[in-house]
Amino acid sequence: MQNNSQIILGIDPGTLVMGYGVIAVHGRSIELLEMNAIKLSAKKDHYERLHFIQQRMADIISAFHPHHFAIEAPFFGKNVQSMLKLGRAQGVAIAVAMQAGIPVTEYSPRKIKQSITGNGNADKEQVWKMLQRIIRLPSTSPVFDASDALAVAVCHQFQISSPLMDNQPKTPRKVKSNWEDFIVQNPGRVK
Amino acid sequence: MQNNSQIILGIDPGTLVMGYGVIAVHGRSIELLEMNAIKLSAKKDHYERLHFIQQRMADIISAFHPHHFAIEAPFFGKNVQSMLKLGRAQGVAIAVAMQAGIPVTEYSPRKIKQSITGNGNADKEQVWKMLQRIIRLPSTSPVFDASDALAVAVCHQFQISSPLMDNQPKTPRKVKSNWEDFIVQNPGRVK
Repeated sequence: MQNNSQIILGIDPGTLVMGYGVIAVHGRSIELLEMNAIKLSAKKDHYERLHFIQQRMADIISAFHPHHFAIEAPFFGKNVQSMLKLGRAQGVAIAVAMQAGIPVTEYSPRKIKQSITGNGNADKEQVWKMLQRIIRLPSTSPVFDASDALAVAVCHQFQISSPLMDNQPKTPRKVKSNWEDFIVQNPGRVK
Repeated sequence: MQNNSQIILGIDPGTLVMGYGVIAVHGRSIELLEMNAIKLSAKKDHYERLHFIQQRMADIISAFHPHHFAIEAPFFGKNVQSMLKLGRAQGVAIAVAMQAGIPVTEYSPRKIKQSITGNGNADKEQVWKMLQRIIRLPSTSPVFDASDALAVAVCHQFQISSPLMDNQPKTPRKVKSNWEDFIVQNPGRVK
């Protein structure tokens, strides 16, 4: 890894699964270091789950020493009780990052999809396909909790590299993505 | 302080104010070590507030070395967005406690009021009056965010000392409180 690489940790912390993705940015090239989805459901107690998030976050940070920490933050949920639990899971993860002095940025799911695919309503499959073009990734389908987290990390890289450009395609890939979206959203208009 | 004292930290973490109360339990006697309400509203940024909670929690824990950590956890709120933020504030505080190896217990507001006054619908003033009988406290009215947190700590002490008794008065004080509640709830029946 080059010395001037920036390491970005993206996480998508849920109450049952915590997805994370770690990327290294070398100039304009992005390298996947690790992506994973940690099952929290094996731990029955709410505090055990929070503790597990804390431990795994600490492990990931000490393994990769990320410079940036980006988190997916939904702005709505099923009910207030599930949002409280989600907030706690996020709070624990954020606390570990802050403890390590890593700046925290959050992105809405819509912003992440917009940033990666050019379409804020893209589905997880579309996001994954775009990620495969941006980064060298396994061809097999991912656990989406993991790919969502990877998308947060890549979204953050796009933001810090050209924050004013996020609504515009930055590369020909983006144009292609928008074009694909157009085809999907307008069946019959493109033959 | 006696060597066999148990120190309990109660907190009531909000998004604008974090209340905390620290008690030392010597046998059946409870001593106030500190109670306070920390204004978070001076910090404009959400992450600055979370970081402030983290720092203050770490300070409190290193000053008092609590054996137990109890937290007030509402099960409803204004809206999902405010619950997510509340959850984050709680999550950060919980993370600091877990990091220090302190067991975490949460209590609903109703449970706390029930435990202190015998009435799950007691108001903050009633809770404070009971706390004044249980613990040597200043006679001046408290900031309720601080007294709420103190109530969580005392509730936890009652739970760990006689967990099966929480719906029953444990001391003559409680009987008096229930009697006062009865008078309040049944105007005209007691002259």
